[in-house]
Amino acid sequence: MKEMILKQIGIIHTPFKEPKGTPIQPGKSNGTEGTIELNSEYVDGLKDLDGFSHITLIYYLHLSKGFELKVVPFLDNVKRGLFATRAPKRPNPVGLSTVELLRIENNILHIKNVDMLDGTPLLDIKPYVPEFDSHTQIRTGWLKDKSGKSEKTKADGRFDD
Amino acid sequence: MKEMILKQIGIIHTPFKEPKGTPIQPGKSNGTEGTIELNSEYVDGLKDLDGFSHITLIYYLHLSKGFELKVVPFLDNVKRGLFATRAPKRPNPVGLSTVELLRIENNILHIKNVDMLDGTPLLDIKPYVPEFDSHTQIRTGWLKDKSGKSEKTKADGRFDD
Repeated sequence: MKEMILKQIGIIHTPFKEPKGTPIQPGKSNGTEGTIELNSEYVDGLKDLDGFSHITLIYYLHLSKGFELKVVPFLDNVKRGLFATRAPKRPNPVGLSTVELLRIENNILHIKNVDMLDGTPLLDIKPYVPEFDSHTQIRTGWLKDKSGKSEKTKADGRFDD
Repeated sequence: MKEMILKQIGIIHTPFKEPKGTPIQPGKSNGTEGTIELNSEYVDGLKDLDGFSHITLIYYLHLSKGFELKVVPFLDNVKRGLFATRAPKRPNPVGLSTVELLRIENNILHIKNVDMLDGTPLLDIKPYVPEFDSHTQIRTGWLKDKSGKSEKTKADGRFDD
C-alpha cells in the first residue's frame, strides 16, 4: 500500500480567507470562531459528540503544495527538520488541531480557536480525551525556549510562495 | 476537492500482528515498544526531532474496512455516534496516537506505548507540543465515567468482522 485515497467529509469555514494572517496554531487564534459543515450523510455520526468540550480535527491543507525536509519554523530563525515542526508543507499535507466545540446544529458544528483557512477540507473528527491525548513529563526540543515568542506570534509566511 | 491521495512515508512495526489483542489507545499499551521505519528519502526531515520526548503519529488504519455511523465503543455497551468515539472504522480510516520517542538511529525511530498493528502505513510525524496539544477544562461526555474501566481494558473486537 503506497498510496491511499481519502475523501472530504465536510468543509471548515473560518474568517481566514488567505494564508497571510491565518494563526499558526489554535492557541494563537484568540478565540476566533468558525464552523464545520459536515456532509449531511454523516450527521448520524455526531450523536453524543456534544458531550465533549474539545474535538480534534484532521484536515487536508489544500493550499500547501510541495515540501522541503528542512524548514525555518515560525518560532525560529534556523532550519529544523520538517518532522520536528508543524509547518504545513509536508509529504502528506495533513493538519491536526484540537478546537473547542461550542454547539452542534444538525450538520453544523460551531467551533472556537480555529487556525485553518476558510474552505479547508475535513477528513476526520475525533473526541479529545486527555487520558489519550494529554501527556506530561514532556521535552519539546528546539521549541522549549520559544514559548514566550509564540505568545506574541500569530501568523507567518509559511503558506506563502 | 473531493478525494485526496496520500502516500505512505514509512511503516510502523509493533508486536501486534493481528487486531485481536492490539491495545485500544497508547495509554493502554503498558510501555510496549515499537519502531518506525521511515522511508530513507525523508530522513533529513528527522533533524531536531530527538529533542522531543513525544511525537504524534498520523497513520492509515489499513485493516479497517467500511464504517457505521453509530458504534458501540470499547468502553461502553450502547451505540454512540462514530465521531464521538475513537473507533477505527471511519469514513477516512486515519489513526492518531501520541507516543514516546526513545531514540532515533538513521531512519529508524524507537518508540514506546504503541497501539498500532504491525505494518501500519505511516502518513505523518508531528512533534507533540503541550502548548498546542494539551488542553484543560475539558468535558468528555459519555467517556467521563468510564476511565476506571479503560484502565482495565486493553483490547476489544473493534477490528474484528
